[in-house]
Amino acid sequence: MPSDDRFQVVDALQVSQWDRELLEQFRPGGVICAHVTIAIWENARDTLSNIGEWRRRFRENADLIAPGRTVGEIEQIAESGRTAIVLGFQNGSPFEDDFTLVETFHQLGVRISQLTYNVQNHLASSCYEPFDGGLSRFGRSIVREMNRCGMIVDLSHVGERSSLEAIDVSERPVAITHANPDSVYPAQRNVSDELLRRLAEKGGVVGCTPHPGLTGGKSVSLREWCEMVARVVELIGIDHVALGSDMAQHWTHGKLTWAVRGRWWSEHEPDYDPPEDPWDPDPAVRDERMDFPWPDFFQSSADFPNIVPGLRDVGFGDGEIRKIMSENWLRLFSDGFRPQ
Amino acid sequence: MPSDDRFQVVDALQVSQWDRELLEQFRPGGVICAHVTIAIWENARDTLSNIGEWRRRFRENADLIAPGRTVGEIEQIAESGRTAIVLGFQNGSPFEDDFTLVETFHQLGVRISQLTYNVQNHLASSCYEPFDGGLSRFGRSIVREMNRCGMIVDLSHVGERSSLEAIDVSERPVAITHANPDSVYPAQRNVSDELLRRLAEKGGVVGCTPHPGLTGGKSVSLREWCEMVARVVELIGIDHVALGSDMAQHWTHGKLTWAVRGRWWSEHEPDYDPPEDPWDPDPAVRDERMDFPWPDFFQSSADFPNIVPGLRDVGFGDGEIRKIMSENWLRLFSDGFRPQ
Repeated sequence: MPSDDRFQVVDALQVSQWDRELLEQFRPGGVICAHVTIAIWENARDTLSNIGEWRRRFRENADLIAPGRTVGEIEQIAESGRTAIVLGFQNGSPFEDDFTLVETFHQLGVRISQLTYNVQNHLASSCYEPFDGGLSRFGRSIVREMNRCGMIVDLSHVGERSSLEAIDVSERPVAITHANPDSVYPAQRNVSDELLRRLAEKGGVVGCTPHPGLTGGKSVSLREWCEMVARVVELIGIDHVALGSDMAQHWTHGKLTWAVRGRWWSEHEPDYDPPEDPWDPDPAVRDERMDFPWPDFFQSSADFPNIVPGLRDVGFGDGEIRKIMSENWLRLFSDGFRPQ
Repeated sequence: MPSDDRFQVVDALQVSQWDRELLEQFRPGGVICAHVTIAIWENARDTLSNIGEWRRRFRENADLIAPGRTVGEIEQIAESGRTAIVLGFQNGSPFEDDFTLVETFHQLGVRISQLTYNVQNHLASSCYEPFDGGLSRFGRSIVREMNRCGMIVDLSHVGERSSLEAIDVSERPVAITHANPDSVYPAQRNVSDELLRRLAEKGGVVGCTPHPGLTGGKSVSLREWCEMVARVVELIGIDHVALGSDMAQHWTHGKLTWAVRGRWWSEHEPDYDPPEDPWDPDPAVRDERMDFPWPDFFQSSADFPNIVPGLRDVGFGDGEIRKIMSENWLRLFSDGFRPQ
């Protein structure tokens, strides 16, 4: 184990195609808890299958992972030397048109959900829509129902206006699990300083990501990336900044096509593909890019300890590093996963 | 048969709970074609069942009705003394997130679809949303795919901005199957003069309705109603004005609760109910209102001939009355139902 393994890590977003090899990266990385995506475009029915798949994965890898539905469970799992898995959605699609599904999915262990992924839905607008009309009436209801049930609202991928309205409507702190400030790295998927400030004012937390699409499309240096983290801390305070790697491993071209284009894409809107995604519709081109240009310091979940010296170099002390690497998310989860 | 039965009627919207008694009203009413709603909140799967139900209804009432998928079929069915039924959606919900479902539902006989019903969805905003952000990217794709397949875009219930953008994007004329001008009867569900003008400029047609919620909430007189029709003709021309009764018969309280509130409604948004709907959540109150206050001159599909003297009284000649009562819709359907 690396020397910095005393820093526990909570990673607020991973979206890999899971196998045991990937789960084995958690321990060397110090990852005591990972929020994993179980729905991108899926409806309720398909999401049930994804939950079933995770139940099987928990049984078959019980020495490595277990479901984390409360911070108490997360801490117990961490003490046992394993990683707590928090299930979540990157879209409101599993809720379909049915208000009651928030509570039902909470019962099944889902604890975090974005309102939208890469297109507008019945709840809100995505950051990739040409115009964001804000939270819909049903969107407001769903935010309040998530508040009631103990499911954290995630504004990653959500449009600016919809996000600001969701922060206003939400009675509990919200998350941006994986995004960077667009004042540092301009990108439609990154977030404004104003949005970060409003998030923090209401007690929320943002997870910074080394995802190449959200760091200027290039493999950023550890120094540059940690300077960005320091800039976010300067902007909104040490209690509101954390990690959300957006790590996406073992994707095949076919699955990635689905993740990027869903069933929405058509020749009528050829520019539909999100600009921040390094995916290419041509499998040949894609193969060349199969190794996402993730930065040298972060190639897998095992690499979290590499971040620690970088954070120290830009001036953070160990107490601050602990907040960034785990404590801020655990504070948010502690209250946010609990029914009102 | 009444003396005015020489006027054939195309009714561009009926949303009843169908039984043979209602189908028997068509012939005395001169109704050669009715566009009936087979989806309000339904997803793809539930819509398939509704189509199956109509297939059974066609078999069991083959002496009264048959499916009208082209104007050729509609004319043949009319000549046989029966009524052609055009299947359509009052929501984009059956398309779910799947672009290909437009063509699939067209194959199954669906020829008209609204983009939204009473709430925002993945395509556009409803007239009842507090803010209309316009057509989404997927909404634009769906409009173009409907153009390609031969499915008419219906802007009833759709928000103003979304409607104007849909008219811009659509390469073919669009419909507002059932609405009145809000300059005559102010209502969120009615439409602006500007929208009517843009609709007509692109070759579209609006269906005027005697629905009590869209005529000032009261049982309007034949004279008043026909004066409204004349006002719309004055505004956008005789070739763009027709009938869409929005006739809704034989609803039970339970079904109506679903139609109004779907599965979206919650106590978090108590004012969710559309203001133009005469429904009341209290079954006791509802019972008193069970007889919708439809105007005396229009109590059922058998009453279309009553409209003719009213239209004459406000100055329309027989050629104009024919356009309003059937020919304008047949012209729109003739091109609009055909694949590009």
